[in-house]
Amino acid sequence: MVKEEEVILLNLWASMYGMKVMIALAEKGVSYEYREEDFRNKSQLLLKMNPVHKKFPVLIHNGKPICESNIIVEYIDEVWKDKAPLFPSDTYDKAHARFWADFIDKKIYQIGWKLYTRKGEEHEAARKEFMDSLKLIEGELGDKPYFGGDSFGYLDLSFIPFHSWFHAYETYGKLNIQQNFPKLIAWGKRCFQNKKSVSNTLPDSLKVLAFVQNFRKIFKLGE
Amino acid sequence: MVKEEEVILLNLWASMYGMKVMIALAEKGVSYEYREEDFRNKSQLLLKMNPVHKKFPVLIHNGKPICESNIIVEYIDEVWKDKAPLFPSDTYDKAHARFWADFIDKKIYQIGWKLYTRKGEEHEAARKEFMDSLKLIEGELGDKPYFGGDSFGYLDLSFIPFHSWFHAYETYGKLNIQQNFPKLIAWGKRCFQNKKSVSNTLPDSLKVLAFVQNFRKIFKLGE
Repeated sequence: MVKEEEVILLNLWASMYGMKVMIALAEKGVSYEYREEDFRNKSQLLLKMNPVHKKFPVLIHNGKPICESNIIVEYIDEVWKDKAPLFPSDTYDKAHARFWADFIDKKIYQIGWKLYTRKGEEHEAARKEFMDSLKLIEGELGDKPYFGGDSFGYLDLSFIPFHSWFHAYETYGKLNIQQNFPKLIAWGKRCFQNKKSVSNTLPDSLKVLAFVQNFRKIFKLGE
Repeated sequence: MVKEEEVILLNLWASMYGMKVMIALAEKGVSYEYREEDFRNKSQLLLKMNPVHKKFPVLIHNGKPICESNIIVEYIDEVWKDKAPLFPSDTYDKAHARFWADFIDKKIYQIGWKLYTRKGEEHEAARKEFMDSLKLIEGELGDKPYFGGDSFGYLDLSFIPFHSWFHAYETYGKLNIQQNFPKLIAWGKRCFQNKKSVSNTLPDSLKVLAFVQNFRKIFKLGE
């Protein structure tokens, strides 16, 4: 008898971190219950399952919580290891993929945040840092079809959610990502065209832009 | 014929991140060449091997760099897998250990830094946050001899370097860690007494205090 799995995802649809987890679950073909959170009114279950950070996404697997998106994705890859391995098998390549996923988590998210929440010098510095960081990431992609080489993997999964945010970053950062990073844009299209786990998961860019507009309105950050 | 391994560690002795890597290498019995870095004058090799972050520690294994301490430790555990496994074998326990190692990296280091570099309200907030974070970590240890249970593992390795910094944190944070966290102190003594990988690696608390004093002097942060 196959053991019945209970998988619940606590998330907010616009979270890049949550999208990573959703793509990983889709790659593995795992069925799960999705529960949408409200960032102004987090559920009791979220606060109970992630009392340290009180953040989404949280994966609850057979009643036990796993928090922090990179850790969740590694967990998913290990538990459902028979289908669609996300990591390269070579130990060095794995460390290399982890390095860039960590860079994306630390840099792109944090600087991207500043593009729509800060003003003046801090905003200006974030604009430069954002473009510099994208340049490093595009350099890492190089001329490969995917970050992992010929097939979609952990690092692709880690960065593709930001693709949905590019339009919002361009709008509030006054940046032109489309024009400056043609390889990243082509890679993004490739992921959308070839991977149902991506195209079925990621929200529309305009919906993300509206989310950011609303966020700025709520926190009185301007139009 | 056994393949000859070339292992070089670029580090600064006072770095908690570097200590983690050194303990992992000691646990595995790996011989390596240690090269001390100067944070005001980083070597050309460091800049070449970690051009993205320009930070130590960097492990160079057969000419290839691995950066970011948690990623290095996981790499070490995977490459030298036959001796002293650092991670729990259970997938959930592994994710759990990773979660706390990540918490230590993100929280303790950053708040600890504020204890000796900030003043006024920011310093006051850091003092409270530091003690709150130690409380969470002590709660995670509970009554177990080690974080991993009966034996020393990844999470012990991730936190024990901070033990060398406790005296400096107490001094500049005006805190009493000894008195407030008896279980953490007992755990620290246990690690020192039972693990040569720890006692042979970690620097003396007074040497760390002198390092912090000198750092504050260089950056004109006060006595």
